[in-house]
Amino acid sequence: MTHSPLKVLIIGAAGMIGSKLMQRLAEEGAVNGAPIGRARLVDVVSPVAPAAPFPTTSEAVDIGDPLAASGLIAGQPDLIFLLASIVSGEAESEFDKGYRVNLDGGRAIYDAIRGEHLRSGGTYRPRLIFTSSIAVFGAPFPEIIGDEFFTTPLTSYGTQKAILELLLSDYSRRGFFEGVALRLPTICVRPGKPNLAASGFFSNIIREPLAGKPAVLPVADSVRHWLASPRSAVGFLVHAASISPQTIGPRRALTMPGVSVTVGEQIEALRAVAGDSAVRLIRREPNETIARIVAGWATNFTAARALALGFKVERNFAEIIEAHITDELLAKTS
Amino acid sequence: MTHSPLKVLIIGAAGMIGSKLMQRLAEEGAVNGAPIGRARLVDVVSPVAPAAPFPTTSEAVDIGDPLAASGLIAGQPDLIFLLASIVSGEAESEFDKGYRVNLDGGRAIYDAIRGEHLRSGGTYRPRLIFTSSIAVFGAPFPEIIGDEFFTTPLTSYGTQKAILELLLSDYSRRGFFEGVALRLPTICVRPGKPNLAASGFFSNIIREPLAGKPAVLPVADSVRHWLASPRSAVGFLVHAASISPQTIGPRRALTMPGVSVTVGEQIEALRAVAGDSAVRLIRREPNETIARIVAGWATNFTAARALALGFKVERNFAEIIEAHITDELLAKTS
Repeated sequence: MTHSPLKVLIIGAAGMIGSKLMQRLAEEGAVNGAPIGRARLVDVVSPVAPAAPFPTTSEAVDIGDPLAASGLIAGQPDLIFLLASIVSGEAESEFDKGYRVNLDGGRAIYDAIRGEHLRSGGTYRPRLIFTSSIAVFGAPFPEIIGDEFFTTPLTSYGTQKAILELLLSDYSRRGFFEGVALRLPTICVRPGKPNLAASGFFSNIIREPLAGKPAVLPVADSVRHWLASPRSAVGFLVHAASISPQTIGPRRALTMPGVSVTVGEQIEALRAVAGDSAVRLIRREPNETIARIVAGWATNFTAARALALGFKVERNFAEIIEAHITDELLAKTS
Repeated sequence: MTHSPLKVLIIGAAGMIGSKLMQRLAEEGAVNGAPIGRARLVDVVSPVAPAAPFPTTSEAVDIGDPLAASGLIAGQPDLIFLLASIVSGEAESEFDKGYRVNLDGGRAIYDAIRGEHLRSGGTYRPRLIFTSSIAVFGAPFPEIIGDEFFTTPLTSYGTQKAILELLLSDYSRRGFFEGVALRLPTICVRPGKPNLAASGFFSNIIREPLAGKPAVLPVADSVRHWLASPRSAVGFLVHAASISPQTIGPRRALTMPGVSVTVGEQIEALRAVAGDSAVRLIRREPNETIARIVAGWATNFTAARALALGFKVERNFAEIIEAHITDELLAKTS
């Protein structure tokens, strides 16, 4: 990456992380000291562009369309965030769609970059940040998963993410682009309405009581999981755009740091912030289906490489609640 | 698999392992107690079929051709060996061809099976044995690689193999077929002429002196590697067709057992069998390129899961030499 004005492309810019990423880029106007020259925002629905100190365009593009990728890369963006994917549940229920979007769509982006790299005589070699997931791991797990633990996904979504990680490392090794794959923790507290994702309750039991509304807890208090705030997720993406690929080395898939907490610890952190009345809004309704799905999820990681590379996350769940209050509740009332 | 006569398909039947596999199936006439009804042998060149107690057909088919897969699977073979691939060096020098044959070609076979599975209303669900490679691993390594070590290939070939492993596990989990991926050690002693593969010397320094011919050793005697005989490789394939997938579980990629030896230990085993005169035929010609490539290869594995599942290999390098003498030298003179 040179320090001439950057052309930024965000694929998946309408999603929760994508829109928060764009908000931060618009506020800072630069990445790693390089001013942003322009940003192009794409998603299956045209993303809403925030006010920014640089020109911004928004488009509706389906990366599952085999013809989409070359059009996205033809302008030779310097910094590409590949965030778009079909979510886990949909990739499981719609086999063809999941592979078409999550695997073939991502690979088409990689191949379009390679094509542009070759056409440029090797001078075009952008930074590519890809959001992978801890779904690349499949139970049974050690108590704490180290950076060298194998990827044996138990969902098609996790399989597709693991494959794009492998391709990203190979294409980076070949010099077509400088890729970094970030395995994001479960994001908590997700803003917005309660959703039916199996992981939704981790956010619901905090966000809803803080807003004075009831929330359903479908699993036991002893369930442990790996969480990071939306603010941290955006921080991972920006940091990944800033560190040198030589520092990362050939193993380009990094498990991001997170906070390992039990549901019971989440609830106690809520009590400390918002009192017993908030906690009383959580209604326990055990759901065996959700409990079984969640039992297959990883609970704790060392994330040693990512921490050594300077990726930062909250130190405890209280800080995750604070981030939510600052970024969502206070931001909206101010 | 039922015990009605099996329809066997070998993709890559003209290769060294493929032809030895077919030879063994022809001798035994059955797999796991089920008689073989017929065998279909395919490769980029039409394979030579040995005499067999069941009908056998041979065809030239390029699995890199996107139209090839459905024709191979339309006859609903019960047992499929997917051995075909572009070798490591060629996949590295010819990027597009490597991905087209090794990734897209293999995936097309998987998808053709899925198509046939769906058309059959779910009754067609063959056994698929895929030969992967220890090239899915990339240095740096622990001294002994365990079964849960991560796959970070340093070649496009290794990347393609790792991706087909992931797809095989997901397609098996979905019930489209019963897949098993076998990570083969480097095969030694390879019969035939010396070749220019970087790994060729592991075989050359044994095979050539045993035939009274000189051989070149391009690396230091201290180089350690992971070897198994051609006979063991065929044994792995047949055993993989026999064990129950339920026993294997969802993690379908298995590192096969091997013998971890140094080049010096190989040479001492040769001396014990064929004396100083044979050893004197080995000429040391250090080659930095080969030494550097080989330094990135894994040297030792626990292979604990495969051993627990009953996969068998030689106990030491002397037995690997014995297998070569019995299967190649004595077989030819008798």
